[in-house]
Order: sequence, then C-alpha cells, then structure tokens
Amino acid sequence: MIHPSAIVSPKAKLGANVKIGPFSIVHDNVDIGDNTVIESHCEIGYPSALAGDRPLVIGANTLIRSHSIFYAGSTFGERLMTGHRVTVREGTVAGVNLQLGTLCDLQGDCTIGDYVRFHSNVHIGKMSKVGNFVWIFPYVVLTNDPHPPSSVLQGCEIGDFAAVATMTVVLPGVKVGAHSLVAAHSMVGKDVAPSTVVGGAPAKYLCDTVKIKLKDGTDRPAYPWTTHFRRGYPDSVTAGWDAPAE
Amino acid sequence: MIHPSAIVSPKAKLGANVKIGPFSIVHDNVDIGDNTVIESHCEIGYPSALAGDRPLVIGANTLIRSHSIFYAGSTFGERLMTGHRVTVREGTVAGVNLQLGTLCDLQGDCTIGDYVRFHSNVHIGKMSKVGNFVWIFPYVVLTNDPHPPSSVLQGCEIGDFAAVATMTVVLPGVKVGAHSLVAAHSMVGKDVAPSTVVGGAPAKYLCDTVKIKLKDGTDRPAYPWTTHFRRGYPDSVTAGWDAPAE
Amino acid sequence: MIHPSAIVSPKAKLGANVKIGPFSIVHDNVDIGDNTVIESHCEIGYPSALAGDRPLVIGANTLIRSHSIFYAGSTFGERLMTGHRVTVREGTVAGVNLQLGTLCDLQGDCTIGDYVRFHSNVHIGKMSKVGNFVWIFPYVVLTNDPHPPSSVLQGCEIGDFAAVATMTVVLPGVKVGAHSLVAAHSMVGKDVAPSTVVGGAPAKYLCDTVKIKLKDGTDRPAYPWTTHFRRGYPDSVTAGWDAPAE
Repeated sequence: MIHPSAIVSPKAKLGANVKIGPFSIVHDNVDIGDNTVIESHCEIGYPSALAGDRPLVIGANTLIRSHSIFYAGSTFGERLMTGHRVTVREGTVAGVNLQLGTLCDLQGDCTIGDYVRFHSNVHIGKMSKVGNFVWIFPYVVLTNDPHPPSSVLQGCEIGDFAAVATMTVVLPGVKVGAHSLVAAHSMVGKDVAPSTVVGGAPAKYLCDTVKIKLKDGTDRPAYPWTTHFRRGYPDSVTAGWDAPAE
Repeated sequence: MIHPSAIVSPKAKLGANVKIGPFSIVHDNVDIGDNTVIESHCEIGYPSALAGDRPLVIGANTLIRSHSIFYAGSTFGERLMTGHRVTVREGTVAGVNLQLGTLCDLQGDCTIGDYVRFHSNVHIGKMSKVGNFVWIFPYVVLTNDPHPPSSVLQGCEIGDFAAVATMTVVLPGVKVGAHSLVAAHSMVGKDVAPSTVVGGAPAKYLCDTVKIKLKDGTDRPAYPWTTHFRRGYPDSVTAGWDAPAE
Repeated sequence: MIHPSAIVSPKAKLGANVKIGPFSIVHDNVDIGDNTVIESHCEIGYPSALAGDRPLVIGANTLIRSHSIFYAGSTFGERLMTGHRVTVREGTVAGVNLQLGTLCDLQGDCTIGDYVRFHSNVHIGKMSKVGNFVWIFPYVVLTNDPHPPSSVLQGCEIGDFAAVATMTVVLPGVKVGAHSLVAAHSMVGKDVAPSTVVGGAPAKYLCDTVKIKLKDGTDRPAYPWTTHFRRGYPDSVTAGWDAPAE
C-alpha cells in the first residue's frame, strides 16, 4: 500500500489499509487513521519549531489529494477530504468530514467545526474560528491583524451554516453570524447578523436571507440552504434538517 | 523520452516524440499528441468518477509545465501551453493554443475557444463559456452559483477578444461582450455591452473601449487591442486583424 | 547532503553544506550559497529563453521550502526564506533576507530591497520596484499593463516600510509612499503619500498612519510599525529603529 518511491518514516503511525502514493514523504510525528489515502507528491507531518512535539493526527477514511503539505501539530476528524496542493500549518484543529479545496492555505492556530467546506484557494488566518456546516468560497481571506504588521492577532468567527462568497475579505475580529450569506467581492468590517445577507466594501446589510429566491423554477426560499442542498452530507446528519417549503 | 523516474501507464496513448519529465505520473486514460512535453512532477489523466470513461485528450505540440494536474475527461486542441501547478478538472473542452498561467484552476464542464490566454491564478467555474482570443488576468473568478451553496449552476459567458482584468469576479450567468474590457478589482453583476469598458463593484459602464488611448507615445486607441498586440499569435491568424490606426 | 532521489546537474555550483531534498531538480545554471537548504519537490534554475545565459544566484544561508520553482536569471541576497510552492521567474533582483510566503508568484524583471516580507499568494508583476522593509499581504497584485493586453509595462513602486494589506490591486505605475498603509481589499489608482492610510476602490486618503492606535491595550500609535514589531529582523537592523512611544 506504500508506493516504493514514497519515503515514509519508520516512526510514523499508520492505521490499517493506509495508502501512500508515489513521491510522497511522511515524516516522523504523524498518526494516520485507517483506510486513509495519501496521494502522490505530498509531504505529511512537516516538522517545525512551532509544532514542537505535537503530532499530526488525521482521522480514518481520509483522502489527501496530490501535492498537499500538512505540518505536524494539527488534528483532523474522520473523513477529511482535500483537493490538490493544500497547505495546512501547525495548530489547526478540525472536526469530521472537512473538505479543503485545491490550493487552500490554512495558516494554523485555528479551529474548524464539523462538515465544513472550503472551496479552492481559501486563506484562513491564524486564530480563526469556523463553526459547523460552514461554506467558504475561492479567494476568501479570514484576516487577523488589525494593523499589519503587528503581533496583535484578532481572529474572525464564522457561524454555523454561514456562507462566505468568493473574493471576500473578513477583517480581524469580525463575527459572521449563523446562517448568514456574505456576497461575493465584499470587505466585511463589522459583525454580520444571523440569517442576513451583506455585501459590498465595506459590506452592508442587504436583506434577510429568506428573501433570496431559489433559481430552480420553484421560487421557494434559497435559505436556509439546508432545505434544498444536501450533496455530500450523510443521511444521519441531513435527517434533522428542514424539509423544503411546499 | 520518458524519464526513468516517471510512472507511465502502459495503457496511455502517447504520440511520436512525447517527453515525460522526472517524477511525473501518466494514468491510463490519456491520449497525448505528437511532440508534446510533460515536465516534472505532473499528474496527467487523474482518474475520477466524474470523468467516467472519458479520456484526457491533449493535442500535438503541447507544453505542460511542472507540477500540473490534469484530470481525465477533458479535451485540448494543439499547442496548449501551461505554466506551473495548473489544475484542470473533468469536462473542459478547449480549442487550439490555449495558454494557462501558473496556478490556474479550471473546475471543468466548461468550453474555451481558440487562442485564449489565462494569466496566473485564474479560476474558471463550471459551466463557463469562454470565446476566442479572450484574455483573463490573475485572480479573476468566473462564478456559477447564484445562491451558494446550491445545485443551480449558471455559467458566465466571455465574448471573443474580451479582456477581464485582475481581481475581478463575474457573477453567475453574466455575459461579457466581445471586445469589451472589465477593469481591475471589479464585481460584474450584469451583462457588459460589446466594445465597452466597465469597472467597479458593482461594475458600471465607464466608456467605450475606443476612448482608451495607448500609452506608448502615439496616443492611438488601445482597443481593439488586435491593432497593436500580436505577440504569441501565428501570422496566419493576425494577418486578418486590423492594421493600427495611422 | 544531496538526497539520492534528487537530480542535480554536475554543472550547478553548490556552496559548502548545501542540502537538496528528495525529488528535487537542480538545473545547470545555478550558483547556490553556503549552508542553503533546498527542500523536496523543487525545481531550481529552470532554464528559459528569457533567462538566456544569466544564472540563478542564491545567497548563503537560504531556505527554499518544498515544491518551489525558481527560474534561471535571478539574484537573491543572503538568507532568503520561502514558503512552499513559490514561483520566481527571470530577472528578479532581490536584497538580503527576503521572505516569500507560500504560493507567491514573482513574474520577474523586478527589483526588491532588503528585509522584505511577502505573505502567502502575493503576485508581483514585471517592472515592480519594491523598497526595503516592505510588507505585502495575501492576494495582493502589483500590476503593470495600463490597457491589457499590451506591450506597455508601467511597474509599481512600493516605498520603504510600506504595508499593503490583503486583496489589494495596485494599478500600473502607481507609487505607494514610504511608511504608508494600504487597507485591505483596495484598488490603488493613484500615488499614496508617505505615512498615510488609504483604502477603498478606488483607494482614497483615510488618515495619517500616526492616527492608527495599537490594539494591545496601550493605545500608542501603531505606525511606524517599527516601534512595536521587530520579529524576524536581526538586532543589528532594529537597533536603529525608534523606541516605542512611552
């Protein structure tokens, strides 16, 4: 299951049925769960001073696609799934079934809930707190430094089920409320109320999310999105979600 | 022509004089044209459920630079040229002499015309339709979901010879007209008329493209850009373009 | 010190104690200083027509992290330090102790001073001139073409100690003054006066930098940032900086 060209430390802890692809490197301080696949050209458990003795812990049934780099010192629940060329630094603590798109860049020292989806090329600054079932789209940046450069770090908070659309910056310390939507190309400088839509630079209140209509011909509300979008979530989770409005 | 460290499936169809660089992987379902160069650390024909049985077809005389990843299920005309770390997913159908800059991310299920140039780090959402001779600059995103997350996909259309400048988002379903220019850092929420300049967030009409003067000391019109910029196009194509204004 | 899987040209000039990681490639025309570490999956001295005979010169005590690509034809002072997947093209001339974050994309033909820090995913267009002690944050683009596509290149200039915050575009030919701050998500279309804060799209004067208070409980000025932030600079340099206001 380990490709002959891969370089795997004898100190690495690999669960049952773990596969390691060609030209990948697995360092000492890692603990990889059963049935996990690490594809080609990856570097797993990259050692660093900031990680110290903390291992990289990856839950079972994970898929890490090619060219990805994970530092030591982070923890992921089961069923992590990544795109290609993901970078994850020290101190990231994530729940189950996180999806990280191609080119995502997690700076570490952050917490991420369960069933979160980051699309391609999302940048998560240190000290960010991301809730459960959150969606973040390409080229979104969660910042942390109110007056760069400095050593003052104020992480953002993204509430459960919130969606942050592409090319948006969330300023340091801002809280994006649960079930809210931040429109594309926004600069969010103050807290976003739950179940509201904001947009612009600086982002302003546009409407309540319930006002957005689903463009599938039915004209029913598009939010909460859990009423119509369930792809990729297990039935055990979506069973508790609202049925679509009739 | 195949580096000894490369891993090439015996099922892959390679044309005459194809070169495969060190540490690259070529999967089963690919058909690569004559005289094509695949550099180092690439992954070509990445298999996926979405690709199904569709092969990756790459035209002759192509150059794929190092660290690039192409999924199965896409088709490219002759003389494709890429930068490094390009990602191309299933269902991309492109014409001849496409240029993809470093870090471009094509999500698949899109069509791209002939002689298109994407600069670095362009993100093309599914269902996009890109015409011929289009230019798209770094960190531009062509979106597709009018109320993310959902399963409703409304692709953008970019007309022939249009140029979309850096850090611009084009919203779902928007049509950018032929020979138009979208200014940098714009958010395009409605259709752009042909041969006009739009900019801002939301993008508004600024002027007709003919009003932009070329800053080369001549003060002649900068658009249509075909009157002054021909680098990288074959003479057989540019012979039909307008001569510069006297 | 050279991993057996690495491919290193016998023509490459390597200083004392240079380390080359697994699956990395070092081409002919490079001159690498003493004690430098090139990690895994890198490509160093990529040959190109634009580089011509110019070598890639990397100063001593450098760290190039994994998956990075440096073209021939550039020069770096001592103690260069990069993140992962950096791309640097021909004609880049940089001073000492440059830091390039993960995914930075330097297009070449640019000059960069001493002790400059680029965070992740910074895009530096050709003809840019970056001063000393500059900070540039993620997804910033320094542009150069006033009417794309064209062959007219007007590089930006970023003054000493300036900070350009995330997701900002600097338009061609614009000069950002010394000790200034460009706020996040800005589009800078005209010159920025020294020691001022600008923001927005288009960016406008917001205040003098001295008006920004440091959010560390002291309420002292956050700028010049040299009064409170010295991490990563040698004592020999910071000894000359202002002490914090009492």
